[in-house]
Amino acid sequence: MMYYPPSIRHLIRHLATLPGIGEKTAERLALHLVRARKKDAEALAYSILNVKEKIRLCSRCFGLSDTDVCSICNNPSRDAALLCVVENVSEMIAIERSGAYYGRYHILQGALSPMDGIGPDDLRITELFARIDEGEIKEIILATNTHLEGESTARYLSELLERYPVKVTRIASGVPLGGDLKYVDQLTLKRAMETRYVLE
Amino acid sequence: MMYYPPSIRHLIRHLATLPGIGEKTAERLALHLVRARKKDAEALAYSILNVKEKIRLCSRCFGLSDTDVCSICNNPSRDAALLCVVENVSEMIAIERSGAYYGRYHILQGALSPMDGIGPDDLRITELFARIDEGEIKEIILATNTHLEGESTARYLSELLERYPVKVTRIASGVPLGGDLKYVDQLTLKRAMETRYVLE
Ligand SMILES: [Zn+2]
Ligand SMILES: [Zn+2]
Repeated sequence: MMYYPPSIRHLIRHLATLPGIGEKTAERLALHLVRARKKDAEALAYSILNVKEKIRLCSRCFGLSDTDVCSICNNPSRDAALLCVVENVSEMIAIERSGAYYGRYHILQGALSPMDGIGPDDLRITELFARIDEGEIKEIILATNTHLEGESTARYLSELLERYPVKVTRIASGVPLGGDLKYVDQLTLKRAMETRYVLE
Repeated sequence: MMYYPPSIRHLIRHLATLPGIGEKTAERLALHLVRARKKDAEALAYSILNVKEKIRLCSRCFGLSDTDVCSICNNPSRDAALLCVVENVSEMIAIERSGAYYGRYHILQGALSPMDGIGPDDLRITELFARIDEGEIKEIILATNTHLEGESTARYLSELLERYPVKVTRIASGVPLGGDLKYVDQLTLKRAMETRYVLE
């Protein structure tokens, strides 16, 4: 590395802090940026600065947004009667990508985890109930993850939700499509059997 | 992608222009930068801007530099009597990495290639002879690549250099260390035979 001028050494060091980018790749990327047109390299730099400047949590759903209220919360063609509760933005993105959902979201910012000291007050639960109190929501889809914390968060919420005039559903879990039963773990199979449904 | 706020979409698009970074990786890197501490993400952005601001070609060797004259040309502990001529910065870096060289460099900025319309005037050849005229250099090591263009550039330079009171050498080519003869191509083997030397 000593054979690079300091500015390139710094760039390599910063690129190498990115996940999955080792020293070799960082070096290759840095040399690419050195050779790139000034305006292209600057466009990348400014897009990083812009993200850090603009991105905040949506004040309604707590998803990522450039504006106070995000484009999903603001989109009148999304069904305001459906609210999908997820742990984090990445789950929201996975559901959006599936194209199977046209309602709105509430991102809890995690799951209950007594072991890690994460209780109800650390999640956006008060804000969830405030949204339900507005009266538009008819169904709450609990789409927390299916690991221990996600399951107990779903259970905790479903108990509190009994007092509200909303339908509460849980996203189905079971054998993945294209999955071979013999490779599916015991708990998943158990759940798949318990939540079996009648074919019409 | 539509589920990301515009600032994140722009960042993904710019990251995906980097070599070897596909859409998926760009997305992962963008989300990492969204979550990263502001000062860490900004440090990366500013290191890109800094490189584009500072990096220029050294006015003596035409290597990469933050300053008018690079740290190798300016380093008094590098042997001023040895000058290694390479095509591009990447070859200079490869030689530096080998740790086998303690002289200085001259980076031609390419090789002669009549097919691509690259003639002597397109390379830093005038500047090479100007450096030799200064009188300090005793040996010129021609370390252009061993492909057609690199070989003919070395031959062209060695002919011009006959008029100068310097020793002219060519970096050796032959069977790579750890290489198996049966996997080495014909031309390399031919060259290795022709340039065989007496063991002492
Ligand atoms: Zn929102
Ligand atoms: Zn230099």
